[in-house]
Amino acid sequence: MKVNPDLAYERRGAGINSEEFAVYWNGGNDKLREKRWRENYYLRDGYEEKFTVPDSYLSHKELYERGVERTVHRFQKYRDLLASGRYGNGNFYDNMLLMVESEVTSPLSPVTTHLSMFVPTILGQGTPEQQEKWAEKAANCNIIGTYAQTELGHGTFVRGIGTRADYDPQTREFVLNTPSLAAYKFWPGGMGLTGNYAVVIAQLYTQGKCHGVQSFIVQLRDEDTHMPLPGVIVGEIGPKLGMNCVNQGFLAFKNVRIPRGNMLMKNAQVLEDGTFVKSPMSVLTYGTMVYVRVLIVEDASNNLAKAATIATRYSAVRRQSPIDPSEKEPQIIDHVTQQYKIFPQIAKSVIFKMSAKALLEMYQQVLQDLDTGKFDSLADLHALSCCLKALISQETSQGIEICRLSCGGHGYLQCSGFPTLYGYTTAAATYEGEHVILLLQTARFLMKAAKNPDMSATVEYLKRFPDRSFLATWDGSIGGIVEAFEAVAAAKIRTAAQSIDRRLGEGKKSGQASNESSIELVAAADAHCRAFILRAGHEAMQKISGKVSPALASVLRDLLELYAVDAAQKALGDLLRFTTISEANVEQLQKRLEGVLSRLRPNAVALVDGFDFPDEVLRSALGAFDGNVYEHIYEDAMKSPLNQEPVNATFHKYLKPFMKAGKSKL
Amino acid sequence: MKVNPDLAYERRGAGINSEEFAVYWNGGNDKLREKRWRENYYLRDGYEEKFTVPDSYLSHKELYERGVERTVHRFQKYRDLLASGRYGNGNFYDNMLLMVESEVTSPLSPVTTHLSMFVPTILGQGTPEQQEKWAEKAANCNIIGTYAQTELGHGTFVRGIGTRADYDPQTREFVLNTPSLAAYKFWPGGMGLTGNYAVVIAQLYTQGKCHGVQSFIVQLRDEDTHMPLPGVIVGEIGPKLGMNCVNQGFLAFKNVRIPRGNMLMKNAQVLEDGTFVKSPMSVLTYGTMVYVRVLIVEDASNNLAKAATIATRYSAVRRQSPIDPSEKEPQIIDHVTQQYKIFPQIAKSVIFKMSAKALLEMYQQVLQDLDTGKFDSLADLHALSCCLKALISQETSQGIEICRLSCGGHGYLQCSGFPTLYGYTTAAATYEGEHVILLLQTARFLMKAAKNPDMSATVEYLKRFPDRSFLATWDGSIGGIVEAFEAVAAAKIRTAAQSIDRRLGEGKKSGQASNESSIELVAAADAHCRAFILRAGHEAMQKISGKVSPALASVLRDLLELYAVDAAQKALGDLLRFTTISEANVEQLQKRLEGVLSRLRPNAVALVDGFDFPDEVLRSALGAFDGNVYEHIYEDAMKSPLNQEPVNATFHKYLKPFMKAGKSKL
Repeated sequence: MKVNPDLAYERRGAGINSEEFAVYWNGGNDKLREKRWRENYYLRDGYEEKFTVPDSYLSHKELYERGVERTVHRFQKYRDLLASGRYGNGNFYDNMLLMVESEVTSPLSPVTTHLSMFVPTILGQGTPEQQEKWAEKAANCNIIGTYAQTELGHGTFVRGIGTRADYDPQTREFVLNTPSLAAYKFWPGGMGLTGNYAVVIAQLYTQGKCHGVQSFIVQLRDEDTHMPLPGVIVGEIGPKLGMNCVNQGFLAFKNVRIPRGNMLMKNAQVLEDGTFVKSPMSVLTYGTMVYVRVLIVEDASNNLAKAATIATRYSAVRRQSPIDPSEKEPQIIDHVTQQYKIFPQIAKSVIFKMSAKALLEMYQQVLQDLDTGKFDSLADLHALSCCLKALISQETSQGIEICRLSCGGHGYLQCSGFPTLYGYTTAAATYEGEHVILLLQTARFLMKAAKNPDMSATVEYLKRFPDRSFLATWDGSIGGIVEAFEAVAAAKIRTAAQSIDRRLGEGKKSGQASNESSIELVAAADAHCRAFILRAGHEAMQKISGKVSPALASVLRDLLELYAVDAAQKALGDLLRFTTISEANVEQLQKRLEGVLSRLRPNAVALVDGFDFPDEVLRSALGAFDGNVYEHIYEDAMKSPLNQEPVNATFHKYLKPFMKAGKSKL
Repeated sequence: MKVNPDLAYERRGAGINSEEFAVYWNGGNDKLREKRWRENYYLRDGYEEKFTVPDSYLSHKELYERGVERTVHRFQKYRDLLASGRYGNGNFYDNMLLMVESEVTSPLSPVTTHLSMFVPTILGQGTPEQQEKWAEKAANCNIIGTYAQTELGHGTFVRGIGTRADYDPQTREFVLNTPSLAAYKFWPGGMGLTGNYAVVIAQLYTQGKCHGVQSFIVQLRDEDTHMPLPGVIVGEIGPKLGMNCVNQGFLAFKNVRIPRGNMLMKNAQVLEDGTFVKSPMSVLTYGTMVYVRVLIVEDASNNLAKAATIATRYSAVRRQSPIDPSEKEPQIIDHVTQQYKIFPQIAKSVIFKMSAKALLEMYQQVLQDLDTGKFDSLADLHALSCCLKALISQETSQGIEICRLSCGGHGYLQCSGFPTLYGYTTAAATYEGEHVILLLQTARFLMKAAKNPDMSATVEYLKRFPDRSFLATWDGSIGGIVEAFEAVAAAKIRTAAQSIDRRLGEGKKSGQASNESSIELVAAADAHCRAFILRAGHEAMQKISGKVSPALASVLRDLLELYAVDAAQKALGDLLRFTTISEANVEQLQKRLEGVLSRLRPNAVALVDGFDFPDEVLRSALGAFDGNVYEHIYEDAMKSPLNQEPVNATFHKYLKPFMKAGKSKL
């Protein structure tokens, strides 16, 4: 199909080269080339053409069945690639990431949890013998597992889970039991009907004592017949807001016995006689959590970039509502309110990814420090990863909805791609740590930092703003805005700390004092996080000049300007309280906002083109590269099974008798 | 099943009588009794038991077919009721509302648009002869129609639609044509496969001239065979984020001829020779739009109340995360952050409904005024209805998501009811006028009011704050907070007006000046709306004392306090700019917030019980009256077709060959 002329015009008129941005955004020429090669290999093999009805029309059962079929096809291609030696000796994680980045598992598959949780847990918590026994088989998908931690009654508070593993020294086995409905495992991906193994998190009982939660490898289904093993009650949990291909499951045990060697014993052990041997919690466990959060933040930023791509292209193609009554209808991207919806989402995609990168660099530094015996930065890093994951998963979800709503009714269509993107991204606000709980974890760290600001680099600003009377000087520069946000964070951290102290002074217990101050604790963590994101964006942008052309550098700096000005306007109350910002400065912010939106306007399409999402990844009738929006919407509708026959059977069976009969009073 | 003990405890311990609140919320004893009678009649007849698989498991096609079956069943019961004389001589609108309020059409049915748009349009725009010909048949559902206005290429900007009706004086017919794909009708409810008629909005051409959009009654399908008539291209548009039972459709014409008498001619006419006779736009058209918006606001408030009911009951039942490490896990409703998520949604449900009532009273006053020839308040009323619909549909959608997220992972399940509620409510942000467009319409009115504040009662505050130097005095009372929000609105209206004037002074055209100032215009309309809502809540609460017991009045006032304090905290930047609020006042707001959350805590369950949504309406495993949350979630999962067989066929067909074969490198 020909490219829509409005979109072609936008591309010709852009002041930046979208290919240059694509290279920058994707981490260099080699990575971009490799990414495109993989997308081509996995997603442009014609396989999907066999599915004449799009996923969104299917029943829950049909969707699962197609998901298995698709997953096996793509994983086989992945296997072929490994066998061909293309990835050399790359390790499991690297290879897995390549697969995830290539969207091989997208829409999320029933084997995603196997790859992202089951195999890594064996590698991370298994002894060498245990790894030999299970890791390679698992990495080969000769067995497929899941990670069974969450229960109907317990998610975030892991210590409260009810599944128990009682050690029986007579037989040297653990006996697994699910004492109540609330203790049913619930939510593990791929556990419904797909996997045959699981890492099960259970309360360990031995020698008459509970030793807290430990991890056990449990076979759930027969490797040949796939029938659940005796005592194993397993099934799937039904439809959700999104991620319906993941085949999440429930699981309960009735006296299921597993050998002693099935407890993952790298960290803690149960000896043959039942003696429990505790080992210190590996600091690497923290490390893995941080790494997973980096991935979640990157993934969420990517999803927001997809939504922004769809909305931007649609807004360049759609024409509606004259600005001047005598002129023809403009592209809706010329309406300033539309720019104000979409452009901040482009900016957030970029700035959030920069903050993920900053977190990753800290993580790598901390790993090096650990090697040399320095553990100081670990708590800092962990605290930062909590709030970044919490805040960015929320902001990206909301940003996707803003993009959807900016496309009016058509954004509401499944074929727009928005409902899937939202369903997927908003889940990240809950899994791997619920939003508020994570912010409270960050806040706990910040409360310590308030007493001792020397403890860590990320709270260095507490020293610059030693009490709430130190207002940040508002000079309007980006650096000044960063300072201002740090002053806000410092003030909020102190406010929360004082609230807790006041309540402790009134004789309240620590837990109660924290609970009663928790709204302020969350606000402190939120402010700390926003200051970090802004600083990360600012520092990344300062290093950019040599790396990209002046034209691109200027547009990227405009994205930071937009992000900063938008953030400042939204935090106006805080800035008025804790900085010297004046009424004239406030009015100036509005002019800057309008100015930067107008400067970004000619480059909006080129920017989202540079995100480099092929149509096979975007999966959006509104966001296709060729911009033939109405044609794609219509094509999708014409695939509806309901449109394959002119009259549905329910007409004759129900509607017609009803319409022909009866009479009611007007 | 027994009621969950935590929930039973909450009910015993409440300080208010939930039945008393139910009477108040539902508009009196008689209305509450009648509502319950209808719910019982329509929803507790055992009919749904035939559907052993819940709707959420079905394919798009199956869902449609079940929707038709269910709709016919319920509408037949409605017919029976009318025939029995229960509603006496109630008119069509009243009866229709009773049916909608009884959730007879919920989940929305393929006949909803027929009732809410097709019949009313005939009644409102048809001549007496036209009404005789079609209205009763339509009200009887002997024919089923829809309202076909929106096209693929045009929604909000109706004047831009492309479908044309050319009058042919030779045959005295209109010839309907769809000149392009963008001009395909798209979105009308029930048009896909259900209806056989439509009111079609098309550009009227006669005597070589276009006379703008007019309404035509067009038969789409044969009344016996249901086959599309020659030249009619009709089908359904596929799956959406929500409202999938509505069977929205597309429609195009190729030289479809209809008699002259099929143009609805109450307002404008085409004579036999083709002469066009214009009549002034009926002011009642405005009135209908206002009325529809009142209904949307009420409906949205109700949906938020449903979400708050689900989240509150779940939070009373769910126990997690000790507040004090030595104590047992509390009900999560005891975590202050959880209260801060949910209680403001209860408050919003109540305050928004009060503002809908205030709008309705204005509407009824304006109708009386029109009878006496007074048209002054019409523009005012219209402006207010625009921003209320825009703001409240947005706030309720966001509130539903906050409730969903407050339930953690389980809120993500379809059986929680949240995804359906959200899909339905967020649609209201787009249909019947897109969010920003509506706010800009309000803003246009406000710009006139800025020049002439005497023009209307709703902008009276502009006189109290004649320029931006008049700061509102912050005294902390609710009345004072209302004043403060009015001062903010006045300042923002003036700011937007000055921006436009400045741009006009720079020589820009009016349309361009407005577009460049549109972010400020939207902010002005938003502020105007928030001030109105707060005032409506304040005034309603002042009248409450005599109507309900002191205990209930006190709790309702706490809801207003929560709403006001929360709104003030969120608008802090504005308040610091335009009122005398001090730092001490700001800190006081936080204490008030914590105080009111804690006071509401013991009555939260009683309040949501008083919303009086039966389980059949809530349709939520998390929100059921008995609070047996985990049991209901598990029951729903066990209905999954995937759980009816222990091993899915895809294991043998795809998974097993893949797992058994192959080997990749670690």
